[in-house]
Amino acid sequence: MRTVNAYAAPSATEPLVPTTIERRDVGPKDVLIAIRYAGICHSDIHTVRGDWGPITYPQVVGHEIVGEVVEVGSAVTKHAVGDRVGVGCMVNSCRECENCRAGMENYCLAGNTGTYAGTDRDGTITQGGYSTHVVVDEDFVLRVPAALDYAAAAPLLCAGITTYSPLAHWNAGPGKRVAVVGMGGLGHMAVKIAAAMGAEVTVLSRTLAKKDDGLAFGATDYYATDDDATFEALANRFDLIVNTVSAPLDLNLYLRLLRLDGTMVNVGAPPEPLPIQVFSLFNNRRSFAGSSIGSIAETQEMLDFCAEHGIAPETELIGADQINDAYERVLSSDVRYRFVIDTATL
Amino acid sequence: MRTVNAYAAPSATEPLVPTTIERRDVGPKDVLIAIRYAGICHSDIHTVRGDWGPITYPQVVGHEIVGEVVEVGSAVTKHAVGDRVGVGCMVNSCRECENCRAGMENYCLAGNTGTYAGTDRDGTITQGGYSTHVVVDEDFVLRVPAALDYAAAAPLLCAGITTYSPLAHWNAGPGKRVAVVGMGGLGHMAVKIAAAMGAEVTVLSRTLAKKDDGLAFGATDYYATDDDATFEALANRFDLIVNTVSAPLDLNLYLRLLRLDGTMVNVGAPPEPLPIQVFSLFNNRRSFAGSSIGSIAETQEMLDFCAEHGIAPETELIGADQINDAYERVLSSDVRYRFVIDTATL
Repeated sequence: MRTVNAYAAPSATEPLVPTTIERRDVGPKDVLIAIRYAGICHSDIHTVRGDWGPITYPQVVGHEIVGEVVEVGSAVTKHAVGDRVGVGCMVNSCRECENCRAGMENYCLAGNTGTYAGTDRDGTITQGGYSTHVVVDEDFVLRVPAALDYAAAAPLLCAGITTYSPLAHWNAGPGKRVAVVGMGGLGHMAVKIAAAMGAEVTVLSRTLAKKDDGLAFGATDYYATDDDATFEALANRFDLIVNTVSAPLDLNLYLRLLRLDGTMVNVGAPPEPLPIQVFSLFNNRRSFAGSSIGSIAETQEMLDFCAEHGIAPETELIGADQINDAYERVLSSDVRYRFVIDTATL
Repeated sequence: MRTVNAYAAPSATEPLVPTTIERRDVGPKDVLIAIRYAGICHSDIHTVRGDWGPITYPQVVGHEIVGEVVEVGSAVTKHAVGDRVGVGCMVNSCRECENCRAGMENYCLAGNTGTYAGTDRDGTITQGGYSTHVVVDEDFVLRVPAALDYAAAAPLLCAGITTYSPLAHWNAGPGKRVAVVGMGGLGHMAVKIAAAMGAEVTVLSRTLAKKDDGLAFGATDYYATDDDATFEALANRFDLIVNTVSAPLDLNLYLRLLRLDGTMVNVGAPPEPLPIQVFSLFNNRRSFAGSSIGSIAETQEMLDFCAEHGIAPETELIGADQINDAYERVLSSDVRYRFVIDTATL
């Protein structure tokens, strides 16, 4: 065991505070990572505030982690001391169910082990990346290509893979028209990745406030959903709509924008049930789907893709003492487009 | 114009009555069909009762039509006098939109012309198959293979294609586990067709009342959805669920039965919006989709498939004077499994 610095939520209602936590000894298959940067994901806020159910406190969150390997277990073969590595939303899975055997650990039927607020194999609650060090099974550690800036790579581990996976699965690419709903942390990555894949990208945002950014990120069109005319103009247009918004939208309005065999996939997770008109799906044989992060193999593929295409999130680097302010700014959409914590300040 | 016998709804609330209607002259591309049999579809009842919106009365319904060609227009090339033919749910489409050009007239962006209660090219309201004759553009007339019994072929034109199309599109076949929700007119066809395609078929019905039938139709398993244990036992099991039920179900219960990349497709059309929990879709990257009849080419493929595999619906033949009783029996699910009207009694 080693004691390391971290920033933790003491309860659902109090600000995060500096603290120390224990990290387990490095087991035969484990990698000890000195964390350099950790992204702030909206999920971190939902989790510590109990929006997705009660959790155990104190809780350290953060699942967009990059750093350097400083120690490896005796049986580790995939990573070596000095390697640039990353950890995303999960640190383990059952490895026995049909999805794990198919290499889709993110859909582990027993539930994968979340990087934070999950139950680890030893029964302890996992603690996330707002911390100086973390110990992770080598199978859940990604290689961060040298071409990726360290700080900018962090948000790829959640925002990047969460959007890359559905874009790749539903074949975004040349000749395909893709809409991205919402242009926050996830949305701006979806625009960059879909454009790099060769798709024609349209942003559907509440207002036109971020239009210049959207076009700079690779979108060819940008529409305001506050304007009803948008939904008339774009009827039957898209092969794929990636909805990154966690707030409840009128999905039927968006479904009508899908052309034949089009799919709208939610990566945002509104907690309330959303009413769907089946007739909205009948026309054009439309589908409404969900997608949850991506597999480890796919996450590596995404990192390599981003390195090859020079894709990086837009980030704002902060010190630990700015985390609570950053949370407020995320909640008021006042961030372009992802906060990244410099863990040297912990 | 010719005057022919028919059975029409005079209003949304009155019983159907014998009447006569006018059929247009046979144009260059038209086929005049002497109707032999017409199936009774639940949609007929929804339509005449105004459940799907107001219609113009009197209205003749029926879109499961088989008969014999008795006259063809001067430019007709696909059909000849004496041919056994069928007409399904549509009799025309715009032929210009991207879906029509792709051979998917059922998804015509201008809306295909329904066989009844639609607006025909001359502005008149289309009148359906509870009639002795109908005039239809040859492009929307199907060949009924000799191996198919005439009366039994009728329900294939709606119930058959409505279930065949999603089963074919979502690749029901060997190694795939398919569930069929509801075992009425559509459901019993879905079971037969999916089994003939080589899929492993499970019926999910409210009770076990039709279990023997289901197994005889080719299902390997049959579960009652009245029993909560069903939803535990079948979690993460199916590649495809075809929901034939028009009543609102708790879709989230059913979505959880889908395995990785599984799809639940509705062919039943509840008018009210159905609440969907996005978290139900996140697990296993599930999809919820709609499917509406099938294209003309696919309908022909389905008829040929049924002929080749010896598939026919279970039918109860009735005379015209039994139509109103039959409607009541459809509404109380007292039919195994499709009423077919002998049009010689009109």
